Amino acid sequence: MRRLAATLFSFSLFAGGAIAADQAPTQGANPMLKSEEIRAVAPALEKYAQQFLQGDLWKRAGLSPRDRSIVTLAALIARNQTVELPFYLGLALDNGVKPAEISEIITHLAFYTGWANAMNAIPAAKNVFNSRNIGADQLPPASGPQLPLDEAAEKQRATRVGEQFGQITPSLVQYTTDVLFRDLWLRPGLAPRDRSLVTVSALIAAGQVAQITYHLNRAMDNGLTREEAGEVVGHLAFYAGWPNAFSAAPVVKDVIEKRPR
Amino acid sequence: MRRLAATLFSFSLFAGGAIAADQAPTQGANPMLKSEEIRAVAPALEKYAQQFLQGDLWKRAGLSPRDRSIVTLAALIARNQTVELPFYLGLALDNGVKPAEISEIITHLAFYTGWANAMNAIPAAKNVFNSRNIGADQLPPASGPQLPLDEAAEKQRATRVGEQFGQITPSLVQYTTDVLFRDLWLRPGLAPRDRSLVTVSALIAAGQVAQITYHLNRAMDNGLTREEAGEVVGHLAFYAGWPNAFSAAPVVKDVIEKRPR
Amino acid sequence: MRRLAATLFSFSLFAGGAIAADQAPTQGANPMLKSEEIRAVAPALEKYAQQFLQGDLWKRAGLSPRDRSIVTLAALIARNQTVELPFYLGLALDNGVKPAEISEIITHLAFYTGWANAMNAIPAAKNVFNSRNIGADQLPPASGPQLPLDEAAEKQRATRVGEQFGQITPSLVQYTTDVLFRDLWLRPGLAPRDRSLVTVSALIAAGQVAQITYHLNRAMDNGLTREEAGEVVGHLAFYAGWPNAFSAAPVVKDVIEKRPR
Repeated sequence: MRRLAATLFSFSLFAGGAIAADQAPTQGANPMLKSEEIRAVAPALEKYAQQFLQGDLWKRAGLSPRDRSIVTLAALIARNQTVELPFYLGLALDNGVKPAEISEIITHLAFYTGWANAMNAIPAAKNVFNSRNIGADQLPPASGPQLPLDEAAEKQRATRVGEQFGQITPSLVQYTTDVLFRDLWLRPGLAPRDRSLVTVSALIAAGQVAQITYHLNRAMDNGLTREEAGEVVGHLAFYAGWPNAFSAAPVVKDVIEKRPR
Repeated sequence: MRRLAATLFSFSLFAGGAIAADQAPTQGANPMLKSEEIRAVAPALEKYAQQFLQGDLWKRAGLSPRDRSIVTLAALIARNQTVELPFYLGLALDNGVKPAEISEIITHLAFYTGWANAMNAIPAAKNVFNSRNIGADQLPPASGPQLPLDEAAEKQRATRVGEQFGQITPSLVQYTTDVLFRDLWLRPGLAPRDRSLVTVSALIAAGQVAQITYHLNRAMDNGLTREEAGEVVGHLAFYAGWPNAFSAAPVVKDVIEKRPR
Repeated sequence: MRRLAATLFSFSLFAGGAIAADQAPTQGANPMLKSEEIRAVAPALEKYAQQFLQGDLWKRAGLSPRDRSIVTLAALIARNQTVELPFYLGLALDNGVKPAEISEIITHLAFYTGWANAMNAIPAAKNVFNSRNIGADQLPPASGPQLPLDEAAEKQRATRVGEQFGQITPSLVQYTTDVLFRDLWLRPGLAPRDRSLVTVSALIAAGQVAQITYHLNRAMDNGLTREEAGEVVGHLAFYAGWPNAFSAAPVVKDVIEKRPR
């Protein structure tokens, strides 16, 4: 916790941050900007980061720093923004996201944001893991025991999607069942609520408005609260831009208002 | 064909792949990840690639390996994902896509995904062409004889778009006629059916749902089959993410159901 | 003006351009492609750039070269395309965009395209500023006097958004008021009309169709003309791809037709 506090209040780290000499970046894991580089172009940008990002946003109640880290990682990977990944991967570990969870987040996003997005996150994660001596023993296995499946709900989902699209794109329908809902979502290394948080964050960050309704309902079924959902939108305004936040807001409102209290 | 088989079954190549020493990458054409790098972060990601990508997706009937290569290149360029381009450019050549066709695909996507996306694909293509001794004699000329134009259909299209947008954005209307439909689409280096396949794949991969209807109809007029269209959606689920596939699916369904059998 | 003319007509510069030896790129500010590199892959791409981009688009009446530079920078930053940024930052300065305005454009886009997009533009801007001896004295201060605020209009906007989303995502509503409309938009370093031009260009370039109506109306309230709006769409067809232009066109048409003459 002391490390988290030190990180959150250290502006030079937050706005770009010197990388310690022993964390020499490897390919694909570029160091972030130094404060003086930002000031040499946009002094206001540094001020806003200090005042609103680390000075306010990350301290807001309603969404824990751990959840904010998960949301931020999902946004960066969904938007293929690798430059800031090393810093936010380190912050995620400081905020209590486990290495195994980071591994699962990257694997999950291969399916929900595109294979190359996940691959492009590997070098930064490898570098951060190396610098903290995180080895294979802390990673989830490629295969293993699964979480229990709600067969009735999954059958209902598969039937509905099959009726809609089974004649049009049988491969999509088949992979959705076999790979996503009977495999990926049952991996125990990331709690279903967190897996849903990753998914919803990636959808909002990539402007995938049409897919938010299903996954936000699933997220709230999995335990995400109304307040947390609203904070995710406000958090992503900074990390994915105001337009994505405002395009998501009406859908989030509609989902929340239609759910039974 | 032997080379294709060797490539498809060689997991280490497929999931990241060692680059042969004589293919030293140039600027903008970074080597892909090695298998041990992926395993150091996400062992499951490597398993899924082996099991579902090269073990299943690329072998499915309904869309040829050559077409899958075209779809994949369009998705990567549309999404500005250059890291995996060298591998997939090589695979495309192995799968029978000609150098001249790759040249046309990149030029075509300058217009359909943004100029910088095409420019960013140049270094990787140059490197792959160099490593295979593909010279200027195998590339299409900057200008030359054109495919025949269906003047009646083009006049109808131009009139419709002109009535819609001619008063609002005359430059868009004019360039669409002069550059796209009376020039780019008539270049003989890429068959109209393949040019349409590139266009539809780029639209789905970039989430440009509103533009799919026109171009999928054009693609099917140009010879793309129903089955192929459905396989394109399933293929792009992996390379552009499930949300893009599921946002495209209802539009693809609507187009297919409204076309005369 | 002589420098602008020289730049616009120098094809080798425009299509990729040799970087002068004294402009050695720093990290994140890669040099653009040389003409022979483009020709080694796609000879037609070079021809189209010469014929339609510098030969026609940038010379069209209806939108000044300065405005076209602002639109292009907004598109590149919104789409996180850093490779061509150094060239277009230099062209913007040649076209009369002031260093302080470039600084404000980058800061503005942190909020309207995502924080990392702005951060990723810093290295290229720093390099271009350095190479032209542009120092801190030419940059806007982090804080300072603000433009006057239309309190009635802002109160109306805040009330409307608060009623819509205040219960759902209070953080988004609060930051929108405090950071955007009572701070960022009042910074004097970029005229409101230009700030709106940046915003609308970024929205179109990133496919944020749902947010265009509000901001295009605001842009026209701030002085953007009908003709300029139409030229922005045509310009962005090249820099953000035809699909984004055609998805924006109906919205632009609707906004223009509904406004009082």
